Parts: sequence; C-alpha cells; structure tokens
Amino acid sequence: MEATAQEVDTAVRAARAARGALADRAVRSAFLRSAAAGLDAARDALVETADAETALGPVRLTGELARTGYQLRAFADIVDEGAFLDVVIDHPDDTATPPVPDLRRHKVPLGVVAVYSASNFPFAFSVAGGDTASALAAGCPVVVKAHPDHPALSELVAKVLRRAAAGHGIPEGVIGLVHGFEAGIELIRHPSVAAAGFTGSVRGGRALFDAAAARPVPIPFHGELGSLNPVLVTEAAAAERGETIGAGLAGSMTLGVGQFCVKPGLVLVPSGAGGDQLVKALTDAVSDTEAGVLLDHRMRDNFVAGVRERAELAEVDSPVTPGAGGEHTVSAGVLTVPAEKLAEEGAHDLLLEECFGPVTVVARYAEEAEAAAVLSRLPGNLTASVQLSSEEAAGQGRGAEILAELTPLAGRVVVNAWPTGVAVAPAQHHGGPYPATTSTSTSVGGTAIERWLRPVAYQNAPAALLPAELRDENPLGLPRRFNGVLER
Amino acid sequence: MEATAQEVDTAVRAARAARGALADRAVRSAFLRSAAAGLDAARDALVETADAETALGPVRLTGELARTGYQLRAFADIVDEGAFLDVVIDHPDDTATPPVPDLRRHKVPLGVVAVYSASNFPFAFSVAGGDTASALAAGCPVVVKAHPDHPALSELVAKVLRRAAAGHGIPEGVIGLVHGFEAGIELIRHPSVAAAGFTGSVRGGRALFDAAAARPVPIPFHGELGSLNPVLVTEAAAAERGETIGAGLAGSMTLGVGQFCVKPGLVLVPSGAGGDQLVKALTDAVSDTEAGVLLDHRMRDNFVAGVRERAELAEVDSPVTPGAGGEHTVSAGVLTVPAEKLAEEGAHDLLLEECFGPVTVVARYAEEAEAAAVLSRLPGNLTASVQLSSEEAAGQGRGAEILAELTPLAGRVVVNAWPTGVAVAPAQHHGGPYPATTSTSTSVGGTAIERWLRPVAYQNAPAALLPAELRDENPLGLPRRFNGVLER
Repeated sequence: MEATAQEVDTAVRAARAARGALADRAVRSAFLRSAAAGLDAARDALVETADAETALGPVRLTGELARTGYQLRAFADIVDEGAFLDVVIDHPDDTATPPVPDLRRHKVPLGVVAVYSASNFPFAFSVAGGDTASALAAGCPVVVKAHPDHPALSELVAKVLRRAAAGHGIPEGVIGLVHGFEAGIELIRHPSVAAAGFTGSVRGGRALFDAAAARPVPIPFHGELGSLNPVLVTEAAAAERGETIGAGLAGSMTLGVGQFCVKPGLVLVPSGAGGDQLVKALTDAVSDTEAGVLLDHRMRDNFVAGVRERAELAEVDSPVTPGAGGEHTVSAGVLTVPAEKLAEEGAHDLLLEECFGPVTVVARYAEEAEAAAVLSRLPGNLTASVQLSSEEAAGQGRGAEILAELTPLAGRVVVNAWPTGVAVAPAQHHGGPYPATTSTSTSVGGTAIERWLRPVAYQNAPAALLPAELRDENPLGLPRRFNGVLER
Repeated sequence: MEATAQEVDTAVRAARAARGALADRAVRSAFLRSAAAGLDAARDALVETADAETALGPVRLTGELARTGYQLRAFADIVDEGAFLDVVIDHPDDTATPPVPDLRRHKVPLGVVAVYSASNFPFAFSVAGGDTASALAAGCPVVVKAHPDHPALSELVAKVLRRAAAGHGIPEGVIGLVHGFEAGIELIRHPSVAAAGFTGSVRGGRALFDAAAARPVPIPFHGELGSLNPVLVTEAAAAERGETIGAGLAGSMTLGVGQFCVKPGLVLVPSGAGGDQLVKALTDAVSDTEAGVLLDHRMRDNFVAGVRERAELAEVDSPVTPGAGGEHTVSAGVLTVPAEKLAEEGAHDLLLEECFGPVTVVARYAEEAEAAAVLSRLPGNLTASVQLSSEEAAGQGRGAEILAELTPLAGRVVVNAWPTGVAVAPAQHHGGPYPATTSTSTSVGGTAIERWLRPVAYQNAPAALLPAELRDENPLGLPRRFNGVLER
C-alpha cells in the first residue's frame, strides 16, 4: 500500500494539526511514558511480527524493544527536567555596548518532523525509535516513512503510539505513517515538514539530504548514513593480549550478522607475533560463527558482491572467506591486506568503504606511521577505537596522543572496548563527520532532542504576557542562565 | 587584488595549520582580549578608513567599533567559563537497557571557518565581527571573504587581529583574508573548510548555501539572508499612542539609512483615527529626514527600482515618496496599502519582500482577521514586533495570544519597542525561519559559538588519558552534567 502524494499530504496535515496538543510538557512526558508502557504490553505480538519480517530472532528483538521503551522513558525524564529549553534571561543593562534590553530566550519545537526508519533496528530506529521519541519530546509531531523490510510491524507500532496519544487527548495524527519510496520523496518536499531524521545508506540518505537542501525553504536533515568504524591495535596491546582482542573483534563484527552501523569494518593490526595471534584468534572464532540471514535480499546481494570484489584485489587474503551461505544465509569472514596498500589512493580504496554485513578488513602495519597514514585517509566515522596495552592505558606511552589523533575521525572514541552496543545515555554521541552523519547532531542519547528545536528570544515583553518558562520567579524550576549566571 | 584559486588554497592551508595554536582555551581568550584592545588602539585610523569606504559617518562607525570590541571580550569570557563545551559525564550503569559504559562527552572545534562579511556592518559583521569572534572562541581559525565595499578596512582589521595573534604565539594564518567573488566560491568549495558564516542577501546567501550542500562532504552553512521584520500595531495601541508609535517607527526604519537587516519593513496599522494619527506622525517625521547615502551604487539602484515598482502597484499610495535624492543620495519614504491586498497571493506579494533601504510599507487593516491573514503569509523573519496598549501589556486582552502568534514567524519577538539595535547578550537570538537564516542558529549573542563545534564522546577511556575537561575531579571547574545531574 504505497502512499500517494495526496495521502502523504493528508498525513502531514494531520500531524501539523496535532502540534497544539503537544505544547504542554507534562502532557508530552505522560504520553511518552504511556507509549513505552503500550509497547511493553504488546511485547509478544510485536516481537512475533518483527521476527517474521526481519528474522532477527526473538532474543535480539526483545532486547531491542526494551531499549526502545527505555529510550521513550528517558526522553520523558528529559521533558520533565526542561534543561533542553535552554532558558536564558538577561535583564536590561544600559552600560553594555550597545545597551541590552530585557531579553529572554528559550527553545520552541520546529514543527512536523519526517522520520525515515531503518531496516536493521525495526524498533529502536523505526516508528517508535530515537528520532520519533526525541521529536515528540521536543513537541514535534512526526510522519514516519516505514522501512519496506517491516511494514506490518510499522503499522502495529504506530497503532500502539496512537492509542497512547489518544489516552492523553492528543490526536492520532501526531504519528503519521506512510509506505513507499515515492512517498518518502514527497514527504521531504512537503512544505509543512520542518525537519527530517534518517538512518540508512549513504546513497539513500544523500539523495534525501540533497532534496531537503534544494527545497524553496531548506530544512535541517539529520541523517546517519554510513561508517567504517576503524580500530587501531597498538603493538604493545597485540603483544599483551592478541588472542583476547582477536576473539573480541570476532564477537563485535559478527554481532547481529554484522548489520550494525557501528560494526568495526577496518582493523589496523601490527605485523609480528602479537598481531599474528590476534588474526589467528579472530579467524578461529569467525570460522566457528554460524551462517546468518541478512535483513533482505538486496542486502545479501550487496554483501556477496561487495566481499567478492574486495577479495579479488591484489594482496588481499581471506583467512575465512565471507560470502553466500546456503538457504539465503551468508557466512562471516575476514579479509587481510598489507596496510601500505591503503596508505595511498588506488584500487584498494574500496576497502575503506563500508561493507554492510559480517566482514571486517584487517590491515597489517609494519610501523606506526603506516597506520597513521591509513587513518588520515578515512572519511568521517561514527566511532574510532583503539586497543591499548595496560601500560599505555595507564598513561605510559602514546595513549593520550592516540586519543587526540582519533578524535577528528569520529563522534565516539572507544578505548579497550568494541563500538557495537550503543548505550542510551546523556553523554552518548551517535554521529560524526560526514558521511557518518549529515549534521553535527546525534540520533542516540539525550542531546538528540536538540535537533528539533529552534531558539526564540522575547525582547521587552511584559511579565504578564511571558510564557511561564521565561518568568523571573521561575515557577517551573527550570535550569537556566540568569543574568549571565548558570542556575540549576 | 582578487585572490586566485591558489591564493585561497594557501590561506585555507595556513588557517588549518594554526588550529593547534588555538587548542588552549586560556590562549584563545587572551587572544580575543588582545584583539579587542588592538582595535581600540587603532580606532582613529580604522574609523577614518571605514568612513572613506562606507560613508556611514564617524559617530555610527565609532559606536560599531565599540560593539565589535565588546563582542570579542564577551566571547573571551565565554571561553573562560567553558559552559559551551557542554560536558556530560556518565559513569557505567549495568542496570540500563542496554548497559551504559563510562561515557564522557564534550565539544571540539569543527576546523577552518569561512566568514563572508557584510556590507552594512564594516566592523561588527565583518573581519573582526561576530562570526570571526565566535569561531575563534570555539577554537576555529577563519578565512574571511572581504566585502568589496570596504577592502582597505578589511586589510587593516586583519592586520590588527594578526598582530594580536602573534602576541600569543598564534600563527598569523589564523586570520585569512581573501577578496573577490570567485574567491568566495573557491572558499566554500575548499575541502579543508569545515563550516561557513554569511551575512548578506538572499540571492548571494542561497547560492553559497547551495554550494555548501552540494560539496562531496557537505558543511554547515550559517547564513543570515533577509527579513521583512513585520510590526503589528493593535487597535488599542494606535488609539492610545498613535503619534508616539508613528514617530518611533520613523526613527527605526530610517536609522542608518534603512540599511539594517532588522529594519521594520511591513507595519500592520488599524484603520480609523488612531491609525491615521500614527501614519501622519510617521509621514511627518520621515518627510523631515535628510536624504542619505547608501553603501554602494548597486544598492542605490536596487532601492530606487524597488520602491518604484512597489509604488506603481494598484492602491499603493506614497504619503512620502521614497526614491533617488540628489548627489548619489536616496530619500526615505513610506508606502501604504490596504491590508486586504496582501491577504491573498497576487501582484502585491512584492510588498512582502524585503526592500533594503529607508522605506517601510504600512498595511491598513479593518479587522484583526485581516492582519492575521497577512502575517500568516509571511516568509521567515529575524524579528516580529507588536505595539500593545498599556492594558494589553498588563495582561488584559489578547497580548499573550499575539505573542504566541508572532513566535512562529521569527527568532526574536519584540514588544513595545523597535527591532533595530541588536544587543550582544547571552539571551540574544539573531536568526529565524528561512530566509532569515539558513539554520536554527544565531549570529549575535553568546550562543553563536555553538555553530562551530561538534560533540565527541569518549567511551571507557582511562582517566590517565582523558583531556582535563572530562575528568571526574573537574580540575577546570567547568559547568557540566555529571551522572545526569547538572553541576555549576
């Protein structure tokens, strides 16, 4: 049932009409908590439908659903706290140059948000996922473009959200849902859509980003597109615990059949004995990994073609060959290559592009400068990781320097851990230089709410007319900056 | 001396090489204060050069230079305080879904910022203006595209900034300066330019915005393009003090020969006696205004053609005719039109477009609904203002509703005051829905620094390797969110 242009228009208008019902923060947080409770209550039906459509398995899906509810509740807390309103109040100051009048600033919702949901997270990055939760928390109704890999689940989840909305007097139009590629294009072009969130491929995301920028009135497009997620293993770390690192890497790169945007896709491993042990432990563990089912046929085709093309490059070896398994499955695998092949532009640049699925590229470096040369050639990433030895972690050696060198590459720098498993927390940042994301924002963690707000300042407004958020006496107890001083 | 592509490249590379020298916040704030002191010390030469190039007069230019220094010092204070780093620290929490590891987030500078300076503010929105001050405060070197209306002043100011930089061991390349239209295009396309700030016309700004979005790696483009700045005068306000309002409006719209981006360009005035008195006071005051010189010939031509085209529309009157004055000057003027002509799409839509220079359009409305219909048709604005009666300001009547109705239109809502005079203050917001600005950010006030930063989270990083900003013991005394709790 692909939505027509008229159906997209109807959904956007209905969402727009629901804006007023989200104006009250107390209503918003109650709605978010009811939505979480509604998902909990419908768990069995939701997980069954999700598994039928995605084959991700009930364990993973139950966990993902719990994460999704946790996220909705976390945003409810954020709405109640109100720090995201960024209240700033300045009393008049005639001594300033130029003089300062009475000025009071807070943030207001942008309007209807278009959410493009992901294939690989049917709950956490889809209809009730982080984009929707943060947009509703900000006071923005949403229209979701469902992912074609789980249309029935999308409808079910939307129904749960709408029921929760209705329970708080919010029109059901606050959650729009449309299906179809063309509908997605219509949506980004709709004059009443004020911003968009997207999780998916570089190709699809860039096309929508371009459409958002080309509108008569351009809108913010927060897309999370793709990431190689490089890992650097120092020589000392490999010497200290090469086997442990190899086994850990195998677990991270094959988790969820490698279908995570933070899958480590390029690992810089030193040559020598420690590195050899690492690669052996990695290949042993990956060899033991059962073949898995990818989310859809297109992904499987892309994976099989992608690993074949990479494996055919000169000096690329496959200690465990990734590729097509039986019965629609794929087998996990590892490719190795001398790091020097990646240090300069050439055919091997393909290895610096994300290959979605259970494969990682191990680049062996002879000296640090070679590893640094490869890192300097990478496009933006969601994460960059390093495995350090105990001494390096304790501050002996180049640990701090390495952290500084990885910082320009990514939005999250991981030490002695793996990038998979993206925690929902205030300090989380799930974003990074393009193409990791199309903006400087995050789609996971509390600050994701910032994407759907804009500041408004009131000048010389009489106290009687001010919204409660901006009154001197602070009746809502909001954190704010008052005459230059931060107040909690 | 238009810069060649190679000269642009040289400037960007030199700026990039200066990044490290800006890494220390104490050095940055000291540099900003020295820059302000340097501008003060060079005041006479700077004002003389500026006046020769812009004809804005020594009084206005001296005031603008003071504002520019004030702004540099305000950003130095912001750098010292460090709240802009947005530090968030989460200790591990195994009870969360999924579990939360040790996560610590702060903000890092984006890289080289391209600054496109304005014609109408040769100091405050040019080489040492708000974009430059906020970028340097964030830790970003800048390359400024000088405005062709004041090339010599641009060189002089750059020299002052570079001398200040050198005094703190910062390479002079931290302030690049290029001239020429083509150089501006080269600059926005340069792979090492990480973001851009712009103040100017819708046409020029949109072209650069499009170029920024079309890059292989798109970059944030913070442009302040154009604004009509509507003013609503309620019937009660006009009845209470029509004359005062008319005189105040005349002062605001002719200030600086109408060459402010926040000039009130459309005023909704009630029909009836109060409104008539307002218009009479306005026309009397504008008639008494001396002819003035616009910043350049192109602007004068656009103004003369623009007011003529508007005045020729049906039912448009000119109680004081704006247009060409003698000796390269222009005369201020007022156009009036029945508001109903603006309530629906048609030829009169031209009156809803900004006309840069000393002219305002007074639309007379018979009833509130008519005024509301006009407001609903406006594109985004920097400001929206309302003149209320004393009773309305005290909370009797529709005052609060009117504030809520004006909020979607603009980034700053002004009550019983005029939008001209943009204070530099923490609560200021100088931005608004497109085309007022191309992003949700501000180019004036403390939060302008946010444009040049991106967050980075560190996961599981050993204390020994953490930057001081992210350590538990908070050696720098930064405001932060620590395990969910805001700390000052």
